[in-house]
Amino acid sequence: MNKKEEVAIQVEDLQPGLSIDCVIFGFHENELKVLLLRLKNSDIWALPGGFVNKEIDVDQEAIHVLKNRTGLESIFLHQFHLFGSVSRNNTYHTNHLIEQKLLDPNLKEWFAQRFVTVGYYALVEYSKVEEPTPDLLSEACEWCAINDLPNLMLDHKDIILEAHATLKKELNHQPIGLNLLPEKFTIPELQSLYETVLEKKLDRRNFRRKMLGYDILIQTNEKRTGVAHKAPDLYKFDQEKYHLAISQGFKSGW
Amino acid sequence: MNKKEEVAIQVEDLQPGLSIDCVIFGFHENELKVLLLRLKNSDIWALPGGFVNKEIDVDQEAIHVLKNRTGLESIFLHQFHLFGSVSRNNTYHTNHLIEQKLLDPNLKEWFAQRFVTVGYYALVEYSKVEEPTPDLLSEACEWCAINDLPNLMLDHKDIILEAHATLKKELNHQPIGLNLLPEKFTIPELQSLYETVLEKKLDRRNFRRKMLGYDILIQTNEKRTGVAHKAPDLYKFDQEKYHLAISQGFKSGW
Repeated sequence: MNKKEEVAIQVEDLQPGLSIDCVIFGFHENELKVLLLRLKNSDIWALPGGFVNKEIDVDQEAIHVLKNRTGLESIFLHQFHLFGSVSRNNTYHTNHLIEQKLLDPNLKEWFAQRFVTVGYYALVEYSKVEEPTPDLLSEACEWCAINDLPNLMLDHKDIILEAHATLKKELNHQPIGLNLLPEKFTIPELQSLYETVLEKKLDRRNFRRKMLGYDILIQTNEKRTGVAHKAPDLYKFDQEKYHLAISQGFKSGW
Repeated sequence: MNKKEEVAIQVEDLQPGLSIDCVIFGFHENELKVLLLRLKNSDIWALPGGFVNKEIDVDQEAIHVLKNRTGLESIFLHQFHLFGSVSRNNTYHTNHLIEQKLLDPNLKEWFAQRFVTVGYYALVEYSKVEEPTPDLLSEACEWCAINDLPNLMLDHKDIILEAHATLKKELNHQPIGLNLLPEKFTIPELQSLYETVLEKKLDRRNFRRKMLGYDILIQTNEKRTGVAHKAPDLYKFDQEKYHLAISQGFKSGW
């Protein structure tokens, strides 16, 4: 490899010791998935993330990361935790990047300093991400099921688990259905999403009764065709009522 | 003032650009209060906080801050948000500290750099904090009602409001009652705490029915005496059942 493949980073423009990592959730084939990057010349995977320019808000940098990896804007994005353990040590990966001639050795000290990282989770509609895009340090960007994660760098597995735990807790306060499902969906599909996030089965009748009780669903005149049983009705969210309901929190547990 | 009053800080031991701020909540006379510091020779108040030693976990530093200000250990403490706006500019306060000869002018550049701050909220039993203790840059440490806050530095008012908003949302998942009330309390006192945090009145009968329904209260053989009406029973929490109930989240809204 020649010098030109090295990643050009002006470290003096960046906040020292601060990074961001994004857990981008998608829902596909009844599985919760996250978008991961495979590092160049390595079998190690990483969360999409980046550094923070000194002139840019931290939350804004997270929006940039999402845009760059998914091509999408106006995605639901929620900051959920700062990971600040001393044990987060980047020396191994820094050395790997230098050995692979992906990083200027002069940047070793900066890359290997102690970093704290701000965790965000994003909810995206799986089918809208047409071409997940690797960053400069990675050669693949793929959806991976959270129940079957590959080998991840640093504490990225912990970050994913914590994001999922947060999503469970915030299920009644965040627009999960609106962001993870396509515009039109059946009530069984909505239930499957809730079951997948919560990792437990829900009673079909109760779920239907509660969801209809919130008055947030609009029945369309269409039905889901091509399924085995009687074609179920398609619904969409009444977005105004939906946002009002979650701002107050859905009143019942699942 | 002589040189010795300057605060000695070894900035090379600290993570650059990273601070922590603690919103310490107490409940007293039906008000939610926070512990604030008044800066020396100033009418500006600040949240208790500090910097992060390069060798210490961020969460651990927050525990130190709490211990130093309240004298208490094993306090309920929860990290809730990173405040990372570019508009957080510390130049004004840095200049004030230097003018007041509280800070070595050589540290001006370090203090005035861009800082992101990690917000924590803590729940403490008001009566247990016997002597709130100012830090090296402040001359008073007092409880202030969140509905009547003094003039606060930087975005500290926003941090308090965000902490309160988080507390409201997490009311069903965090041990609010256990940490903010004395060991023994009446059900009206518990209700008053919930009403204060939520900033709304709750139905007396409903509240009592729900709380007893969670099976987390143990009736003691004592009564609250010295009150106007019929002496009400004192209860305490069954801590095991309490923690189990909040780990699943209280099932009903308020």
